[in-house]
Amino acid sequence: MTTSDDRIDADDRIAGGAPLDAPRLVREQGVSAPLGFRAAGIAAGIKASGKEDLALVFNEGPDYAAAGVFTRNQVKAAPVLWSQQVLTTGRLRAVILNSGGANACTGPGGFQDTHATAEAVAEALSNWGTETGAVEVAVCSTGLIGDRLPMDKVFAGVTEIVHEMGGGLSGGTDAAYAIMTTDTVPKQVALHHPQGWNVGGMGKGAGMLAPSLATMLCVLTTDARASAEQLDTALRRATALTFDRLDVDGATSTNDTVLLLSSGASQIPVDQADLDAAVLAVCDDLAAQLMADAEGVTKRVTITVAGARTEDDAITIARTVARDSLVKTALFGSDPNWGRVLAAVGIAPVTIDPDRISVSFNGNAVCIDGAGAPGAREVDLSGTDIAVRIELGLGESSGSIRTTDLSHAYVEENSAYSS
Amino acid sequence: MTTSDDRIDADDRIAGGAPLDAPRLVREQGVSAPLGFRAAGIAAGIKASGKEDLALVFNEGPDYAAAGVFTRNQVKAAPVLWSQQVLTTGRLRAVILNSGGANACTGPGGFQDTHATAEAVAEALSNWGTETGAVEVAVCSTGLIGDRLPMDKVFAGVTEIVHEMGGGLSGGTDAAYAIMTTDTVPKQVALHHPQGWNVGGMGKGAGMLAPSLATMLCVLTTDARASAEQLDTALRRATALTFDRLDVDGATSTNDTVLLLSSGASQIPVDQADLDAAVLAVCDDLAAQLMADAEGVTKRVTITVAGARTEDDAITIARTVARDSLVKTALFGSDPNWGRVLAAVGIAPVTIDPDRISVSFNGNAVCIDGAGAPGAREVDLSGTDIAVRIELGLGESSGSIRTTDLSHAYVEENSAYSS
Repeated sequence: MTTSDDRIDADDRIAGGAPLDAPRLVREQGVSAPLGFRAAGIAAGIKASGKEDLALVFNEGPDYAAAGVFTRNQVKAAPVLWSQQVLTTGRLRAVILNSGGANACTGPGGFQDTHATAEAVAEALSNWGTETGAVEVAVCSTGLIGDRLPMDKVFAGVTEIVHEMGGGLSGGTDAAYAIMTTDTVPKQVALHHPQGWNVGGMGKGAGMLAPSLATMLCVLTTDARASAEQLDTALRRATALTFDRLDVDGATSTNDTVLLLSSGASQIPVDQADLDAAVLAVCDDLAAQLMADAEGVTKRVTITVAGARTEDDAITIARTVARDSLVKTALFGSDPNWGRVLAAVGIAPVTIDPDRISVSFNGNAVCIDGAGAPGAREVDLSGTDIAVRIELGLGESSGSIRTTDLSHAYVEENSAYSS
Repeated sequence: MTTSDDRIDADDRIAGGAPLDAPRLVREQGVSAPLGFRAAGIAAGIKASGKEDLALVFNEGPDYAAAGVFTRNQVKAAPVLWSQQVLTTGRLRAVILNSGGANACTGPGGFQDTHATAEAVAEALSNWGTETGAVEVAVCSTGLIGDRLPMDKVFAGVTEIVHEMGGGLSGGTDAAYAIMTTDTVPKQVALHHPQGWNVGGMGKGAGMLAPSLATMLCVLTTDARASAEQLDTALRRATALTFDRLDVDGATSTNDTVLLLSSGASQIPVDQADLDAAVLAVCDDLAAQLMADAEGVTKRVTITVAGARTEDDAITIARTVARDSLVKTALFGSDPNWGRVLAAVGIAPVTIDPDRISVSFNGNAVCIDGAGAPGAREVDLSGTDIAVRIELGLGESSGSIRTTDLSHAYVEENSAYSS
């Protein structure tokens, strides 16, 4: 995995430059880049704004293996409960996604709405010529918690969207647009493997990003031949290292869902290691896109903890610092107030030695062995990217968390969301 | 203990109105209200602004029993390390406090500065006629982390302040002013017990308020006759129910210190239960004052969790909600976005049943059994005080956390603190 700095400015990667025998990431493409997948995105009238709000990802086969990772929030939205249930089969033909409403905390009626949506998609796909059951359709929703969806619009949209599934790449891009909420740009990427198979992905999520997963709907597709178990392994490894380490505001959504579907349409069987690496690269790129477009972001911050006894310790401390409001407001103010970093490290549930801690901001030492370094107050943090590195001096393990600053725009956007 | 609403508007209490046989709280008085205590506050030049920055609380005896509670942050400021050490004797004659610098993360030199300050206070008091050792002097500091204190100014200030210790109440008020940082008002209160003994207290803390204690220097005094063990018991019980349940931004300072000194000057021995109740009342009032003056506060919020299996469960969930940036920004926007409360409850490390949760804002039901209540989006939260009540439906225990909203002013104040 490359560093986050490399990820953020991936334009040179898109332009090419990777050796021909290395996997290549392309951000103009998404879920419909792999063979055997169609996608579409339309405006179904779920959002009051009239913007795109319904997306479909359809697997034409010949394989239908699938895996999913879901929010660890105990309060799970109806579509999460539904999709977890259907995923026990290890098999999916389609994913229907809506923005404009989370369908969370909507009671038994909300669950019936999700079920009816899956039935409607199955029926529309069957009418279109592909015999499909509701149990083969995952459902994802995002938006305000607590309101029922306008089901008349959802049903009409489902009928329409099946006819919009053009082949080619544009369907994937349309789908990426249709799942946006407070996102300002769509997020997608495709990986082309030199062995001839591909992985595509799209994601959304701009607030509530956090510990378990970002808020976050994410659909990944591949045309490699892979079993449901292979997909599950690759997906869990990748999300643990990417979305789980993106922590914008410590909140975990009721709706977080990451799905990986395989069509096998390339006819190429894939090694677990190759699949793991490819899914990780796609998730890592999407995580960087999510960070860059987080609500109110003015700084893209990477907190790295090194010299820890274990990687878990490093991640726990990095996450504590990444969630500290006083650290995040200081970074918003481009203020090299390293004392707040030390205070945050000190409340992490990991035993540390305060006199061994050293901290640098963008490579400039600001604290050495627990006390201020010369010139620490003059370090220039006016740029967009800030790398905070914390050396504990206790061991050999390290880990990083991606986060953002806490800005006026974050407060603004989140104080007027539902009204 | 009364409700926080009662606490916030304590003016009627100050005016009197409590029955003559009940303890009476008076906010015009503080640490020098009990017999046997003198206090002073001066401008020693530690703060660049020239404002008051040095305070002294002096115990004239005949008893010198004392107890203390300190930050749970592993990164402890030099004055915390010093005061913890001297408190092992259970005895204090004086507390010297400075604002304008935390003396945290200042290495061995910073600890020597604290030690030298205690020595200087002991010498000045001895010259003044009260033989005192440095080991009888606690030291508290507050301000920016990471810088050494200007010791020439501290030493000159110590010499001066000993001569400023007038008797009477004004010294305590001066001391309360001198420990302010971003506080906008001094915080003090005194309790007069019908048995004839008194408890006084002052506190400061406006940001970094949190889990272990608020940032927070707090000195309490009493003229009741009480042993160090009695004081320790009363102080631990009171802080656990008050300062430990005030959580403005989840951060815990390197400098948090709460001290309780007894002069015994009333000659009245005190029951543990009476002392516990009095110290609790004073701490509760100071905690309400700290909340009301927290950095950037526009809403005073009480999160109450009821129907929990245990009080610990209730407090854990209330704290998780109190720290949730999305809940706090919604409240800043007077937005009854109850879905964010449910999402926050769902990530607390306590097993809950999402379908049994009910939530009310200021007594208006917004969520019943995990789904929206009629009219939930129209609840008016435009007032200053917001009571969030969460019923879990799992047991009989409850608990409350005091917090604030997350406002533009919080971001503003904390993004430009050290510069």
